[in-house]
Amino acid sequence: MASLSAPVCVGLDPVLSRLPDGVRLGASSEAHAIETFSMGVIEAAQGVAPIVKFQSACFERYGGAGVSAMQRAMHAAREAGLLVILDAKRGDIGVSAEHYAVFAFEAMGADALTVSPYLGPETMRPYLTLADALLDRDGRGRGIFALVRTSNPDSDAIQSQQLKDGRTVSGIVASHVRALGADRIGAHAYSDVGAVVAATKPEDAGAMRSAMPEQVFLVPGYGAQGGDAASVRALFDSAGRGAIVTASRSVIYAFDAGEADWIGAIRTAAAALAGEVAGVAGAWTGG
Amino acid sequence: MASLSAPVCVGLDPVLSRLPDGVRLGASSEAHAIETFSMGVIEAAQGVAPIVKFQSACFERYGGAGVSAMQRAMHAAREAGLLVILDAKRGDIGVSAEHYAVFAFEAMGADALTVSPYLGPETMRPYLTLADALLDRDGRGRGIFALVRTSNPDSDAIQSQQLKDGRTVSGIVASHVRALGADRIGAHAYSDVGAVVAATKPEDAGAMRSAMPEQVFLVPGYGAQGGDAASVRALFDSAGRGAIVTASRSVIYAFDAGEADWIGAIRTAAAALAGEVAGVAGAWTGG
Repeated sequence: MASLSAPVCVGLDPVLSRLPDGVRLGASSEAHAIETFSMGVIEAAQGVAPIVKFQSACFERYGGAGVSAMQRAMHAAREAGLLVILDAKRGDIGVSAEHYAVFAFEAMGADALTVSPYLGPETMRPYLTLADALLDRDGRGRGIFALVRTSNPDSDAIQSQQLKDGRTVSGIVASHVRALGADRIGAHAYSDVGAVVAATKPEDAGAMRSAMPEQVFLVPGYGAQGGDAASVRALFDSAGRGAIVTASRSVIYAFDAGEADWIGAIRTAAAALAGEVAGVAGAWTGG
Repeated sequence: MASLSAPVCVGLDPVLSRLPDGVRLGASSEAHAIETFSMGVIEAAQGVAPIVKFQSACFERYGGAGVSAMQRAMHAAREAGLLVILDAKRGDIGVSAEHYAVFAFEAMGADALTVSPYLGPETMRPYLTLADALLDRDGRGRGIFALVRTSNPDSDAIQSQQLKDGRTVSGIVASHVRALGADRIGAHAYSDVGAVVAATKPEDAGAMRSAMPEQVFLVPGYGAQGGDAASVRALFDSAGRGAIVTASRSVIYAFDAGEADWIGAIRTAAAALAGEVAGVAGAWTGG
């Protein structure tokens, strides 16, 4: 995929009221509409962005029908050669985490899952155990992105709290995430235990990068949430690697409601995102 | 429901390998088997326990088919007169939290949802906004239980960290949860913003109760995870109110694999749980 110039991810957060008129009006149900739209976004991303990220909540709001729609779209994205992140922010005690791992990697076919650290680092290990078993089976690597520093303004209320030892809550989560991934470093010196670190908290970027030198960062907040190319620069390593910039609304809604070639409009927006990010990152080489 | 003697909840964490032989072998699919089993547990709980809690992970592992099965079973539980908690531990930024609220309260028909606080207190507010809108529509109250102090051994790694001001991480989460629920106090002096506080951390029970005097506690860890009646006593208020003890494996697997009347065996175990908890709590009066 020589045309893929940057580590960018197209975020699929489909909301019915914002879909193209033709998709919304031609669908047999709301879940059908967001599935059709998702298939178009997958087509738009091919050859432009290497990764798509499904916001699980947008599909789950339609219950079992919505999850089935997401399941089909995620498998279609993988068949189209895209890497697929399931942004479901799961977090539960060990035995339930095992079930969520099966949900993400087997039922839904995700390459990676976002997970919540609040219950403790060991609750993130079952995902890695299943990833290892599946790697033995099909030769494909899988991984997680732990929530460390999120993009919402309110995240400071917990994540920025200062501990006695001078670290912040997100700092101690970062150290747990690094430790969890320490014996899982791949060929490019990065672990399959990654971290969500937002573009909207540039004041923390340097500290996060040095606290987690082996973590690939999944970087939300770019575009509609206010992050720009300058604010993501410090999240890449000195060689311009180690981060994936993800944008949702600024890409997937880059069309007018009545526009016939809405897929082309999304592709243009995804290419623009890739061009911007290429300016701060090294060239994407896969993996 | 005069026979309901205690604030207990039967946790539905169905795992295929542990289902009764008749259910497992007679089902057309794995999702069908756990749905059939769930319907039996609902039957067993009626008249014995006022509340059932669905562990979402156990259903999600079967993808859309599993979520559809859970959706049908949750609606059946409500129709059977049970209160239904969806234990899905969702947590995401505001716009996605709005979708998860629709998932829980509208698509799935839950009375309450467990939510994760790591992204900040404001990310829990969309659930309350939708609860208020639905109360206006159908007159039924709904609520959330925020994860504060969880039952797994590893939870100390984040939740017990000491902050500069002497509080712990779970302590500051508790204060956010109390603040979020402060203007939502109902007739029984409790808020519809509750908290998950485990029976396995008895050393924190008193501090949690005084930090969150208006929060109903959903108390996991009883039974299979090691908590006993004595360890939950401090989680109730001085009048023996304000907590719901939930047990899963020790109740729903209280049968031999080949036992024909497995529903009766579960009912007996649920009644035993209710009897134990009645010894430390006030009588359940609904709501």
